[in-house]
Amino acid sequence: MRIVKSFIEVSADSHFSFQNLPYGIFKPSESAAPRVGVAIGDLVLDLSVLVDNGFFNGPLLNHTTVFHQDALNAFMALGRSAWTEARSTLKRLLAVDVPDLRDNTTVRNAAFHPQSQCTMLLPVRIGDYTDFYASKEHATNVGIMFRGKENALMPNWTHLPVGYHGRASSVVVSGTNLHRPQGQTKADDEAAPSFTPCRQLDFELEMGAIIGTGNKLGQPITIQNAKEHIFGLVLLNDWSARDIQKWEYVPLGPFLAKNFGTTISAWVVTLDALEPFAVPAPTQDPTPLPYLRETGNNTYDINLSVAIKSKDMDAPQVVSNTNLKYMYWTLTQQLAHHTISGCNMNTGDLLGTGTISGPTEDSYGSMLELAWKGTKPVSIGKEERKFILDGDTVVIKGVCKGDGYNVGFGDNVGTILPIVPINFN
Amino acid sequence: MRIVKSFIEVSADSHFSFQNLPYGIFKPSESAAPRVGVAIGDLVLDLSVLVDNGFFNGPLLNHTTVFHQDALNAFMALGRSAWTEARSTLKRLLAVDVPDLRDNTTVRNAAFHPQSQCTMLLPVRIGDYTDFYASKEHATNVGIMFRGKENALMPNWTHLPVGYHGRASSVVVSGTNLHRPQGQTKADDEAAPSFTPCRQLDFELEMGAIIGTGNKLGQPITIQNAKEHIFGLVLLNDWSARDIQKWEYVPLGPFLAKNFGTTISAWVVTLDALEPFAVPAPTQDPTPLPYLRETGNNTYDINLSVAIKSKDMDAPQVVSNTNLKYMYWTLTQQLAHHTISGCNMNTGDLLGTGTISGPTEDSYGSMLELAWKGTKPVSIGKEERKFILDGDTVVIKGVCKGDGYNVGFGDNVGTILPIVPINFN
Ligand SMILES: [Ca+2]
Ligand SMILES: [Ca+2]
Ligand SMILES: [Mg+2]
Ligand SMILES: [Mg+2]
Ligand code: NI
Repeated sequence: MRIVKSFIEVSADSHFSFQNLPYGIFKPSESAAPRVGVAIGDLVLDLSVLVDNGFFNGPLLNHTTVFHQDALNAFMALGRSAWTEARSTLKRLLAVDVPDLRDNTTVRNAAFHPQSQCTMLLPVRIGDYTDFYASKEHATNVGIMFRGKENALMPNWTHLPVGYHGRASSVVVSGTNLHRPQGQTKADDEAAPSFTPCRQLDFELEMGAIIGTGNKLGQPITIQNAKEHIFGLVLLNDWSARDIQKWEYVPLGPFLAKNFGTTISAWVVTLDALEPFAVPAPTQDPTPLPYLRETGNNTYDINLSVAIKSKDMDAPQVVSNTNLKYMYWTLTQQLAHHTISGCNMNTGDLLGTGTISGPTEDSYGSMLELAWKGTKPVSIGKEERKFILDGDTVVIKGVCKGDGYNVGFGDNVGTILPIVPINFN
Repeated sequence: MRIVKSFIEVSADSHFSFQNLPYGIFKPSESAAPRVGVAIGDLVLDLSVLVDNGFFNGPLLNHTTVFHQDALNAFMALGRSAWTEARSTLKRLLAVDVPDLRDNTTVRNAAFHPQSQCTMLLPVRIGDYTDFYASKEHATNVGIMFRGKENALMPNWTHLPVGYHGRASSVVVSGTNLHRPQGQTKADDEAAPSFTPCRQLDFELEMGAIIGTGNKLGQPITIQNAKEHIFGLVLLNDWSARDIQKWEYVPLGPFLAKNFGTTISAWVVTLDALEPFAVPAPTQDPTPLPYLRETGNNTYDINLSVAIKSKDMDAPQVVSNTNLKYMYWTLTQQLAHHTISGCNMNTGDLLGTGTISGPTEDSYGSMLELAWKGTKPVSIGKEERKFILDGDTVVIKGVCKGDGYNVGFGDNVGTILPIVPINFN
């Protein structure tokens, strides 16, 4: 097979190879309108400029308006055949031996922008956000800490991908800083709760599936069709206030502990770009019910890491390395389960995987697990951490390693700012 | 005080008095575009027609486009001063002694439509939907059934309004029928779960607050300001699949048991219209933390009822009578709590109160409680019900009784259809 290259130079360690071509929403300057871009190397390719110059000329996207919008929703809603057409158009236009864009200096100057000069925005307008709990290692770790080894996994856990509805309004794009939340907490030895700043602020390393096309209320998406409905994946940090969660979550689940902010990466990597990295999911025992049964390679080999940088450190230090492939329940099982009740998905809905923990102590996806409930502080630079402190920056990365190229997600970054003082009068 | 009447005749038992003027989205005919209407008597007043004819001439709504839209969001986003201007404009235009609209036959013919000939649509575009659990009687009843009398209320319950995030995509307008959901259930004496139609389908009588204006992420809405952010209330039926819920909900809360459909009334009754019916909430013991403390009349005396009609019955039969005023945690406490983490609200967000049960056995807000977990079947016509069967219609009503007039919500109606068979191949 002949390897087609792009005329755009991409360094070997870049996340944004010619094989990747992830989508995002960006502004080339502060005053510019948001539009759809694709990352390649250190550049962003402005798809609205390509449309304006007649470079999208397939049957579905000729003169399209979907790339002039401030969210990917309109593009995604066109469905998989339009996603395929866009990708093959871009593959052709960027190829080293195709002169159309390569030799058109005027359009090239207008269409390519250094990523460092662009502002990235939330890539999708999220209707509903759901968070799952699909890593067996994570669920077991948390179970051991809170209920003991005997009752670590709840009886339902191996039968269905446990999930809960999250808060869509507070999903923010990478780079958005968040204030430490406040709320009710109660230590076991206190008689009554008090109002305090969160003292156990945590990250959760997750990925998120972006729903490209939905289903009608009452008409489930079968597991065989699930992949067709997923546009792509993002990196997701499900910030969590452990002390608030502990007091509030019985019996209806996490609420304020999770709704103060959830950070997703700016770039959405398509399932098409991830397909070369598809691998089988872990063996499931017991065999799930028929509506959750699937065959083939249904998860992806995506190397994931978390790093922390305190305000006194020069660079983030990696505290965990894990992989999406460790996850017990797949994205397609999550989607099939979510809709089996008849629940309808809309374009732009976000499905978080839940914290992705691997089998070893250095592959856990949350501070709660890495520092084992505060009993084993984690070293970063000259400091130690049990949870996240004010001024700490958390950096999640995700990358698939190809032969001489990467398919990556860029960074998912967020810094925790101090509380906002509240006046109760 | 002189009682101002409208030139539109309103029967004494109508929910839609001149004092009410609730907002909704309607189509006067199948092919017409959706627009904003106000209910009065048996009629719907088309606000877009009033704008087109120059009848809205206040500083904020002169030539407004917000009444030509398919959701109330744009109107609500203008804020409380615009809501006040709209209400006083309508009060003046509809008054018996104001000739402007009364004597303009052309505009009257264009602007008023019989409700029976209009199609009502979902009144708001809901970003996020949250459901609380704020009735002490309901939480106690459910607690007794599932955990016994000693542990009925969880320790956090009297300290904070317990809530969880719900599914916004499946909120539907009154009159939308829903298919019975299917899913995993497991009886206590079964070794493994099976895939079945829901066998314990229930309603939950609730009300919902519609957020008119929101807050920025990180900046809580204080309890003193909470009322200013609420546009109005709707009747809400939080359909629930009890058997699915029982198996899935540990430890992260209800998911598929609740996301197959939630029905709200077509009419949104404003807080302004409800103000004459404001009453004090139940005394709270212990006194809540400062961020939840409020004084004054913070709940409303709204008579609520649930009726059921089987497919063989001629008319629905009332199975419960209750009242919003029984609720322990108020709407304003719910909103202040929800945002204390910094969580942001958007225009159109929906906050369900949770099931509203009263103190007596005939005032419970769910079939689970009325039939006490199936042990005391409820009579309807010649039939008995433990839960809701296919073909059953559930009708929720809510009305405030004024001196010679009502401020009501109309009906919240939904019929349960049989399952949709699913092909797993
Ligand atoms: Ca999570
Ligand atoms: Ca409920
Ligand atoms: Mg979160
Ligand atoms: Mg519901
Ligand atoms: Ni149907």
